[in-house]
Amino acid sequence: MKAAYTRPLDVKRGRVDLSHGSGGRATAQLVEELFLRELHNEFLAQGDDGARLAHAAGRLVLATDAHVVSPLFFPGGDMAPRAVHGTITAGAVWGATPLYLAASFVLEEGYPLADLARIVASMARASREAGVPVVTGDTKVVERGKADGVFIATTGVGILRDGVDCSGSHARPGDVVLLSGPIGDHGSAIMASRENLTFDTPIVSDTAALHGLVGALLDAVPQVRAMRDPTRGGIAAALNEIARQSSVGILLEESAIAVRPPVEAACELLGLDPLYLANEGKLLVICPPEGAAAALAAMRAHPLAGDAAVIGRIEEDAHRFVQMNTRFGGRRIVDWLSGDQLPRIC
Amino acid sequence: MKAAYTRPLDVKRGRVDLSHGSGGRATAQLVEELFLRELHNEFLAQGDDGARLAHAAGRLVLATDAHVVSPLFFPGGDMAPRAVHGTITAGAVWGATPLYLAASFVLEEGYPLADLARIVASMARASREAGVPVVTGDTKVVERGKADGVFIATTGVGILRDGVDCSGSHARPGDVVLLSGPIGDHGSAIMASRENLTFDTPIVSDTAALHGLVGALLDAVPQVRAMRDPTRGGIAAALNEIARQSSVGILLEESAIAVRPPVEAACELLGLDPLYLANEGKLLVICPPEGAAAALAAMRAHPLAGDAAVIGRIEEDAHRFVQMNTRFGGRRIVDWLSGDQLPRIC
Repeated sequence: MKAAYTRPLDVKRGRVDLSHGSGGRATAQLVEELFLRELHNEFLAQGDDGARLAHAAGRLVLATDAHVVSPLFFPGGDMAPRAVHGTITAGAVWGATPLYLAASFVLEEGYPLADLARIVASMARASREAGVPVVTGDTKVVERGKADGVFIATTGVGILRDGVDCSGSHARPGDVVLLSGPIGDHGSAIMASRENLTFDTPIVSDTAALHGLVGALLDAVPQVRAMRDPTRGGIAAALNEIARQSSVGILLEESAIAVRPPVEAACELLGLDPLYLANEGKLLVICPPEGAAAALAAMRAHPLAGDAAVIGRIEEDAHRFVQMNTRFGGRRIVDWLSGDQLPRIC
Repeated sequence: MKAAYTRPLDVKRGRVDLSHGSGGRATAQLVEELFLRELHNEFLAQGDDGARLAHAAGRLVLATDAHVVSPLFFPGGDMAPRAVHGTITAGAVWGATPLYLAASFVLEEGYPLADLARIVASMARASREAGVPVVTGDTKVVERGKADGVFIATTGVGILRDGVDCSGSHARPGDVVLLSGPIGDHGSAIMASRENLTFDTPIVSDTAALHGLVGALLDAVPQVRAMRDPTRGGIAAALNEIARQSSVGILLEESAIAVRPPVEAACELLGLDPLYLANEGKLLVICPPEGAAAALAAMRAHPLAGDAAVIGRIEEDAHRFVQMNTRFGGRRIVDWLSGDQLPRIC
């Protein structure tokens, strides 16, 4: 059903204006001719402010993320896939099967409709590939200079798998720490893009939705204690959180933590530590020792974790320190990031 | 469980800085000492990035809203209650029993922590009063001048009541249009606040969560066809949407639509039309004629709809026009709002 708008939306040359956030005809036109054109599905087709979905039963899982990455387009993608992937993954690491996504947009007046259309198209692609539809949304517009292009908040709802009980507070001394692949790709891709750095091997963001990988892992080892996707603050922040929540220490082996050569080069050039760099498609797993071999095998069998490795273990430690045996035979404390290494990385 | 931060967060005099969005220690401290202090519940206490919730079964309903109202504080409230109420109501108008909320914040560097704490406290109060907890959240920080204080996106998940089938596409000729009370309070409160207008009787925002009212209405009249909370674009936009979705016309009686005197005064002064002004606690109901009396009685018995009235009826109309019999005996078309009468009203 089409409304009779005076003119079609000029997606090629047009820009977001305040009327697109008014809730009136211009808002309806923007939603219909730009958002719905890409993100069509039976739920959005209800055309209502909110979506009525299928029957579901189980323990609900809810996860939300605001996305303010800058720049909005970067090597390996743009803001939208990671808005989809990040929220799916945030639920998946609790053992949830993701069902639906909601997306709400804050747009800056003057933002090119063509760029917005690219973002929405790539959101639609990411959502289709992940098999998790965007079923409802909202669009607001603020004056020029009151936002920075596009901010997206995505929220995902899912159902917890039976028999899975993962939490950052479940790590126990003796448990094994696994990591799905090399670190720092997303953070260094954004940083290189901001600084206009180029490398022989380009650095691209590793953005991916991890529900498939998590599903394969839990099929093999349902007794996994905790999973994390180490985004902002990198694996250092994620592991410090687990150490704090579980009141344990964590000892890492630097030699087991892979960093791709161009990422290493970018880090040296920019004075960054890959342990603190954001990842958008990596999985940290805490697993009881008796399940570690099966977990590693299940991860390596999945396309997103071919380079999975055991990178450390959980220890008793009243100080709840994360430490690392370095390549040079020393040991250092991997502290929380105290300042802001890289603002607006996601 | 407390982390050992060097100093407690200076909520009185401190300001948001970029490190609060880093995902590191400062983010954790902000979440713990400001957000969790107010919004504590068993789900947030999981301390995880995502919430595992109770068992639920039924058709899920998901609704999301971005909130960019300016100013953030205004007569009758601040942005946070309506972020809670609006999302609860957005689900309730589909006949959903709201269960949980997610809230994601975009903060501007330099924003006073004391004001943020007020906003979070009033979000907590609204959520407690509505009985719908905020179970998970996210916080991002952007540089000064890249946002406008605080933006909040809230998403609600609920379960559809059995036997209810409401949709904007279900209106049929002969149906009755009911409205829960006087219109334009929120929009004119924001506008008066921006223009520093004062009136003998102050105009205050009508923000309220409508799930209780909707529940009472559906208990009495489960065959309600459609409900809307007429926010952005006012009752004009909401009714035009229904007319379009249902391929019907709507005929309103101006004399039946209440506008409080100070709102009327503000509209005259500012050249605004109350039909297009945002409401944050009003309910539009489309009801088959045989249920209209019971619906009106159920609404009037509820504290949020003591002034409920029949304001019009659904008609056959291939043009899908919303029209209004005026107080002066004429008839006018109530068109969609084509420009932006009032930007950033919610």
